[in-house]
Amino acid sequence: MSKSLAVKIIEQHLLSGKPVAGEEIALKIDQTLTQDTTGTMTYLQFQALGFPKVKTKRSVAYIDHNTLQVGFENADDHRYIQTVAAKHGIYFSRPGNGICHQVHLERFGKPGETLLGSDSHTPTCGGLGMLAIGAGGLDVAVAMGGGAYYLTMPKIVNIELLGKLPPWVTAKDIILEVLRRLTVKGGVGKIFEYTGEGITSLSVPERATIANMGAELGATTSIFPSDHVTYEFLKAQNRVEDWRELLPDQGACYDEKVTIDLSQLEPLVACPHSPDNVVPVKSVEHIKLNQVCIGSCTNSSYMDLMKVAKILEGHTVHPSVSLVIAPGSKQVFTMLAENGVLSSLIQAGARILECACGPCIGMGQAPVTDGVSLRTFNRNYQGRSGTASAQVYLCSPEVAAISALTGHITDPRSYPPVSVEMPFSYHINDNLIVPPARPGEEVEVILGPNIKPFPQNTRLPEVIKGRVLLKMGDHITTDHIMPSPAWLLPLRSNIPALSDHCLTPVDKEFPNRARNFKGGFLVAGENYGQGSSREHAALVPLYLGIKGVIALSFARIHMANLINSGILPLTFVHKEDYERISLEDELVIDDLHNQVLSGNTIAVKNITQNFSFKVRLDVSERLRHILLAGGLLPYTKGTAH
Amino acid sequence: MSKSLAVKIIEQHLLSGKPVAGEEIALKIDQTLTQDTTGTMTYLQFQALGFPKVKTKRSVAYIDHNTLQVGFENADDHRYIQTVAAKHGIYFSRPGNGICHQVHLERFGKPGETLLGSDSHTPTCGGLGMLAIGAGGLDVAVAMGGGAYYLTMPKIVNIELLGKLPPWVTAKDIILEVLRRLTVKGGVGKIFEYTGEGITSLSVPERATIANMGAELGATTSIFPSDHVTYEFLKAQNRVEDWRELLPDQGACYDEKVTIDLSQLEPLVACPHSPDNVVPVKSVEHIKLNQVCIGSCTNSSYMDLMKVAKILEGHTVHPSVSLVIAPGSKQVFTMLAENGVLSSLIQAGARILECACGPCIGMGQAPVTDGVSLRTFNRNYQGRSGTASAQVYLCSPEVAAISALTGHITDPRSYPPVSVEMPFSYHINDNLIVPPARPGEEVEVILGPNIKPFPQNTRLPEVIKGRVLLKMGDHITTDHIMPSPAWLLPLRSNIPALSDHCLTPVDKEFPNRARNFKGGFLVAGENYGQGSSREHAALVPLYLGIKGVIALSFARIHMANLINSGILPLTFVHKEDYERISLEDELVIDDLHNQVLSGNTIAVKNITQNFSFKVRLDVSERLRHILLAGGLLPYTKGTAH
Repeated sequence: MSKSLAVKIIEQHLLSGKPVAGEEIALKIDQTLTQDTTGTMTYLQFQALGFPKVKTKRSVAYIDHNTLQVGFENADDHRYIQTVAAKHGIYFSRPGNGICHQVHLERFGKPGETLLGSDSHTPTCGGLGMLAIGAGGLDVAVAMGGGAYYLTMPKIVNIELLGKLPPWVTAKDIILEVLRRLTVKGGVGKIFEYTGEGITSLSVPERATIANMGAELGATTSIFPSDHVTYEFLKAQNRVEDWRELLPDQGACYDEKVTIDLSQLEPLVACPHSPDNVVPVKSVEHIKLNQVCIGSCTNSSYMDLMKVAKILEGHTVHPSVSLVIAPGSKQVFTMLAENGVLSSLIQAGARILECACGPCIGMGQAPVTDGVSLRTFNRNYQGRSGTASAQVYLCSPEVAAISALTGHITDPRSYPPVSVEMPFSYHINDNLIVPPARPGEEVEVILGPNIKPFPQNTRLPEVIKGRVLLKMGDHITTDHIMPSPAWLLPLRSNIPALSDHCLTPVDKEFPNRARNFKGGFLVAGENYGQGSSREHAALVPLYLGIKGVIALSFARIHMANLINSGILPLTFVHKEDYERISLEDELVIDDLHNQVLSGNTIAVKNITQNFSFKVRLDVSERLRHILLAGGLLPYTKGTAH
Repeated sequence: MSKSLAVKIIEQHLLSGKPVAGEEIALKIDQTLTQDTTGTMTYLQFQALGFPKVKTKRSVAYIDHNTLQVGFENADDHRYIQTVAAKHGIYFSRPGNGICHQVHLERFGKPGETLLGSDSHTPTCGGLGMLAIGAGGLDVAVAMGGGAYYLTMPKIVNIELLGKLPPWVTAKDIILEVLRRLTVKGGVGKIFEYTGEGITSLSVPERATIANMGAELGATTSIFPSDHVTYEFLKAQNRVEDWRELLPDQGACYDEKVTIDLSQLEPLVACPHSPDNVVPVKSVEHIKLNQVCIGSCTNSSYMDLMKVAKILEGHTVHPSVSLVIAPGSKQVFTMLAENGVLSSLIQAGARILECACGPCIGMGQAPVTDGVSLRTFNRNYQGRSGTASAQVYLCSPEVAAISALTGHITDPRSYPPVSVEMPFSYHINDNLIVPPARPGEEVEVILGPNIKPFPQNTRLPEVIKGRVLLKMGDHITTDHIMPSPAWLLPLRSNIPALSDHCLTPVDKEFPNRARNFKGGFLVAGENYGQGSSREHAALVPLYLGIKGVIALSFARIHMANLINSGILPLTFVHKEDYERISLEDELVIDDLHNQVLSGNTIAVKNITQNFSFKVRLDVSERLRHILLAGGLLPYTKGTAH
């Protein structure tokens, strides 16, 4: 049977399971990456696992998120990550070197290898034929130690690109069109594999833009073939030895297929507050702007900023618009400085920010109250900009640059097109990437006072007992469980401090109640834990003594994080039982080990109200063993050493 | 009698009084500047005064402090300042255009004119022969409306510079030497006037570095002559018409004189935690660094950064050092981008920040816990960096750059000297300076939800009565009265929100007590209100209903701010009375108008303890009238319209 490229790479890395959609498979991971908001916890977990060195081909720790450094916490995290990386064989990309996905694409990504990253936009490297997946920090820690990465085999969806983009229509518009058609839920449980004549005219950075925003489809990852375009890119990065041709088989089988005729596309924009709320730019041209932001892991490449500079050259940003530009990497920044183009950006009135994620994650440049901000980024969720009332639109760098001059959202197609040549060679200077310590070299790992040990569960007891500490409704998000505004991000390394804020958007008294009762159970409605993949939404409840969550249903990633922490994710068999339970009821589960391993329903006694009810534990046998071990960390320690 | 340059400029601007040290004089103000942490309040006050347009020759509103924009508050302040400036005839320097003092020096400063600025480093423009003084925002608002600026005539101190600086010794080392000799109190009530053959080899930006840090001496201002060096600078700025020769008379009389032989100086560094804690660089070479910061209004000129670039070129920052560089202005940034030098900075591994104050005011780049940071800035007070435990050293850009490469504080004199030529012409592009609206043009002034009306006092009543709301010890600072960490700076436009934090470092219950009793009196020991010039330390107590502060003594600027707010600054005649008073005692002052105007001691009754005591109101007659009017704002409104 003719195979897709994704299946071929999966088969080459398969450690267990069958690559049949819906079955659990285990993959060998070649490379890992972390960033700094997830990195501290990931490396604390890696240390707790007890591995002396990483066993991957390449692991890189990036600093790109918490670069404002309003307090000591960020710099302390950076120092911890730098020292722990040196000690355990991990390359360290210093602050100022750029955004993890952009730098990894430039300097490390390798066609045909697997990459696991503790950031949801890790699929960016799919732009050069890598199988690149975002995951929780503990999964990345296990992979660094040489452990398999388990996932449910996704469906493989072929997106065939026909024709060629018209002037002013860009790679960003392609992915916005995919989002418009498939919505933010359209990629769940899927890998998108791009093929067709249309891809040959897309450079690797353009392909990376598309793969990057596959994350907004909810996809496991997106992938492009490794072809002559990939070769030219790697050659220009002085990495020709990393190239190999990787194509799907002729007539490869796919689970689904989508066809897009590039010649029919027009400039698009995603309207507030969702990346799939996509309309033609020309339909919203009347909207006046307060801010334009260019950069992020989606659109901060050399080519992106060269085009922006050509548009801005000799003009001045509109007096009502604050234009901020953050180059994606030191390589991009250097090249713009070397060829003089940076001067066009500065002269036009752009505010140049450090090479980092910056405003994309709400790290600075919050717009004015009720402000309209046009951004080349990947997400426009309400409040993510730092201003709850702001209206954020997403578009291509070209639309952003022209709109910054006119002061309103502007369709660029009435302007003469700008053209920029791909560079024959990129500027190579990896001096902000610190290699790990040489064998025998002593490294002191330095923890700051804000970096606290994370909670570690132990083998679950035969009987668990505790109060219902909170009873919640439907659709509780990870932002409810563990709020994450800019001012709490520096505390990501400090679970005890974060615990003061756990579930407080639902009930301010929850952390105190959990402490007073020394832990217990959470009860919730449908879709508990939807939203981000942050592990903190499981680690913080674990710290507060939560033994189980009983819900009507769970969001997939949060359920995995609960299991990784050894917290039982249980679903009610009968909805009436959810209705009957009250706050502070005392619950008990007897004969836990047998009940968990049997695969049957589990009986829970409500001692306070004197009734029993049934719950389901809907997970694979491997996960049942992980739960009984107290989570993935003790399980891995118990099996790997 | 032969006159100093300072006296000549004062005489040309004298509206009342005699220029005799210690006497009150009133000056006509030609130019004003504001920045954004003080600007919002200043323009609210200007609007409250009711002037339709500024009456100065030039008023400029800069945005350079709150440029991180972690929440909506900063951007809202920027928009308010932009719109209010347009309406009232004020030039607006947009965020990204640079630090107020650097830009004002480049584009607006004019020899022989007076400049009043709501920032303590306003004296920077003394570098080109301007009489430039920092003041509270209300003083600046009054000056914008055409009102006089009142001050006590300072002593004029001549600093004669002999000889020429040896290689690697800089203007920064000259002012560090002055600080070493005279201390941070050595300039109180003084103007420093620089003369001597030594000044002819100092460029205007170098002179500006020296004038800038005169603020750290506590001086009213510092001034250099306007000579051929000034001419060359203004010509290179395409402003030759702004030049005129301004020199002190031959044999001018000075109150004091200091002589410095430049040829005897060596590279110096100010050690933690005071700018006058100055030692030779070579005596602290063993100190390892975590961070080096280059920039700020002291050392961010084109020449400064050119020298830094020459030192860094072809090298890499030490792996343990985070090097951050913020150019002082868009002009500087553009020129470095145009001539390719910026690329040397980026390639060496410097983190390039937006042209703004940044880390100098604790706006980002807080060092690691217990970290050592070497900075080209002007202040190294404990905690100002954002990290309470950090050790901050101050030095020249040259010492900073070399130390960033070696990883420890380094005397540069064993390295071959670098030389940089002053530019024949600077890059001129004022497109981030928005001129005010043209006559007849409608401007809507936009207030954000965080910008609240400030409290306005009214004519004082005949009898004032109230409880003692707090009894404090000696040396209460403005940081006690109105704390100002980075997270409270966005609230500078919101007195009601700030009032929750007033005096809480002394007593957490104070704001509640003040509200419960609907205001009253404060009682304090010696030197009440020392520290910064922030008006908020008077406006917030006014908002909480404070009618008078009775202390053993006051810091000068805070006392002026209390008077400007119509709060009585009273000193105990007998120290025993301070001892006798208790918290919550009820005090009353009868026949207030006569008592205030008489100039005699004022009788205060302690109703609770049933005794009377005497206090002094040690101010000029003009200030007595200002107090009775309820402060400078109602006084000015009452007399100017």
